Amino acid sequence: MSRYWSSLVHSLTPYVPGEQPKLSNLVKLNTNENPYPPSPRAVAAMRQEIGNDGASLRLYPDPNADSLKQAVVRHFAEFALTPAHVFVGGNGSDEVLAHVFMALLKHEQPILLPDISYSFYPVYCGLYGIDSVTIPLDDRFAIRVEDYVRDNGGIVIANPNAPTGHLLPLGDIERLVTANRRSVVVIDEAYIDFGGETALGLVNRFPNLLVARTLSKSHALAGLRVGYAVGDPALIEALERVKNSFNSYPLDRMAIAGATEALADREYLEKTRQAVMRGRAALAASLQGLGFDVLPSAANFIFVRHPQRDAAELAAQLRQHGIIVRHFRQTRINQHIRITIGTDAQCERLVAALKEILQSDSNNL
Amino acid sequence: MSRYWSSLVHSLTPYVPGEQPKLSNLVKLNTNENPYPPSPRAVAAMRQEIGNDGASLRLYPDPNADSLKQAVVRHFAEFALTPAHVFVGGNGSDEVLAHVFMALLKHEQPILLPDISYSFYPVYCGLYGIDSVTIPLDDRFAIRVEDYVRDNGGIVIANPNAPTGHLLPLGDIERLVTANRRSVVVIDEAYIDFGGETALGLVNRFPNLLVARTLSKSHALAGLRVGYAVGDPALIEALERVKNSFNSYPLDRMAIAGATEALADREYLEKTRQAVMRGRAALAASLQGLGFDVLPSAANFIFVRHPQRDAAELAAQLRQHGIIVRHFRQTRINQHIRITIGTDAQCERLVAALKEILQSDSNNL
Repeated sequence: MSRYWSSLVHSLTPYVPGEQPKLSNLVKLNTNENPYPPSPRAVAAMRQEIGNDGASLRLYPDPNADSLKQAVVRHFAEFALTPAHVFVGGNGSDEVLAHVFMALLKHEQPILLPDISYSFYPVYCGLYGIDSVTIPLDDRFAIRVEDYVRDNGGIVIANPNAPTGHLLPLGDIERLVTANRRSVVVIDEAYIDFGGETALGLVNRFPNLLVARTLSKSHALAGLRVGYAVGDPALIEALERVKNSFNSYPLDRMAIAGATEALADREYLEKTRQAVMRGRAALAASLQGLGFDVLPSAANFIFVRHPQRDAAELAAQLRQHGIIVRHFRQTRINQHIRITIGTDAQCERLVAALKEILQSDSNNL
Repeated sequence: MSRYWSSLVHSLTPYVPGEQPKLSNLVKLNTNENPYPPSPRAVAAMRQEIGNDGASLRLYPDPNADSLKQAVVRHFAEFALTPAHVFVGGNGSDEVLAHVFMALLKHEQPILLPDISYSFYPVYCGLYGIDSVTIPLDDRFAIRVEDYVRDNGGIVIANPNAPTGHLLPLGDIERLVTANRRSVVVIDEAYIDFGGETALGLVNRFPNLLVARTLSKSHALAGLRVGYAVGDPALIEALERVKNSFNSYPLDRMAIAGATEALADREYLEKTRQAVMRGRAALAASLQGLGFDVLPSAANFIFVRHPQRDAAELAAQLRQHGIIVRHFRQTRINQHIRITIGTDAQCERLVAALKEILQSDSNNL
């Protein structure tokens, strides 16, 4: 606390990301990173950007990242987008979402947020002074579209949802957007490539729909920090105005080069996302075999609980076995743990550790 | 304009950066980039981060970029800083400054800004609803410290100033900070390595001093987008709170790796900044020989006018010769052009073009 702080700073409750351990021998299943490396074409593009002596890095990047906008348009050729539908001005979809909250969600009416969802959303509300109303998920952690048919200043939904993995079918998204034409509906599709149907096909029909995406998950580029948003050009213009009043060049040359080529490599995306989905099915089956309840997931993680074990304790025991998973203290979900789908070897190590933990606990009972 | 925009968006006037042309055969002297490539050690560190297959890029970066904080501390070992004095959470000092405006400059009193300075400062005021009072520079484009001894919510000064290149001596900075202990004084040292004395040595004595820096200029890494700020830990904590409410990981892995090693390579910095300063002296002499008024500059650019030539026209004529420089329309400076110090070959090409332009204009008179 300091006399020099703006009054806002005193009231902020920052987001707390999952641990990024500096030990490299841990099995890291806590922040939903992809277990596979990024596309070799993306890696080659980054090497090419560096070149012989890094000379291009002395120059500012393209402030509009036009090559990346074009790559998004081409990646989704079936939806007839144009560069004017695409905002690429953020380091990760976190930063894109921050601009979205400031540019499109600050109105007189409060925005609507599910009670269980990505915990950064309420943090943005605090940062920009936006009121929100929390709408409880149903007993199976599903969104009921009818709960969102009410006056609001905007709606933000992650689909698939985090940390549950629950998928809202595209028909429900369309109902949601149709019922809320007076406000912006933001669909955060960070995990959609792992088993859901994207809402991007609705963008040309609904000027109030904004879809946020990231290259951190399905493109295995969390380390490059690239996100984007797709929507009606009027929504995109608002985001550009805010971004250009904040930082002319948020994306650096390496990020633009790598992300552009990662989006172009559809074959690699297909191969790796299929591998993650196979891994998810296998891990879910193994954990069910150990007595876990496993929520159906369309994401690259599963959300599980064991009827006889405290979740926080399980997470702590896993850490002693060199495996980190994510546990949330929020009341409704504090008996669940969220486990990122790793490689087959990592998942096997997790299952073996859980077997040992459950076995030894049984012996102690 | 759109019903979906927050009211703020309607009122924004974004910053307009200098052109980043996509033609590569232009002599680009318009955005104060370094004419030399970055440190070979920085380039090697980036290659190492990519490794064989880019596998590290699937993982999020260190949200605190601790290695980079440590590199800043070591780079300025003579000032006895600690990591708690260092904020590294922004893509370029532009983004660092945005957080500074929100976290430390939004108070009841207006902030003070010079009338001629970096034109992004008033844009941040617009973004965050901060009032400002504009203080005219004196007739020689110098800051008069006594003009800043008045009630204020903060002060922001670029030193050396842009686009003038004018340097305020360290003694004047100390007087400024001493006279304003009730508010935060921000010294933007983007260009300080090209001939000024840094204010970092004052940080441990003045809890109201914040120094912003960038790797874009003297470290030749504009393309990596890395900035930082140094100040009392209480000021830094405010910046961390805002940053962590906006984006947990604004700096990507490539930027952290390259910037950390660039700061470690003091020898390369010394060599290249000396070369730029020699180039500046030579270019200033040549332009004076052509009849230009050249303001004394402590930066990697010079600010010049020709008594008989319209500046906008000169800039347009240079572009026809394949050379781009920066012209500002602001009344007090619309007869000046700002020229970045290029390589010797680039500067010679500029001088030859100007000779030709002045010659041919004389013939036409």
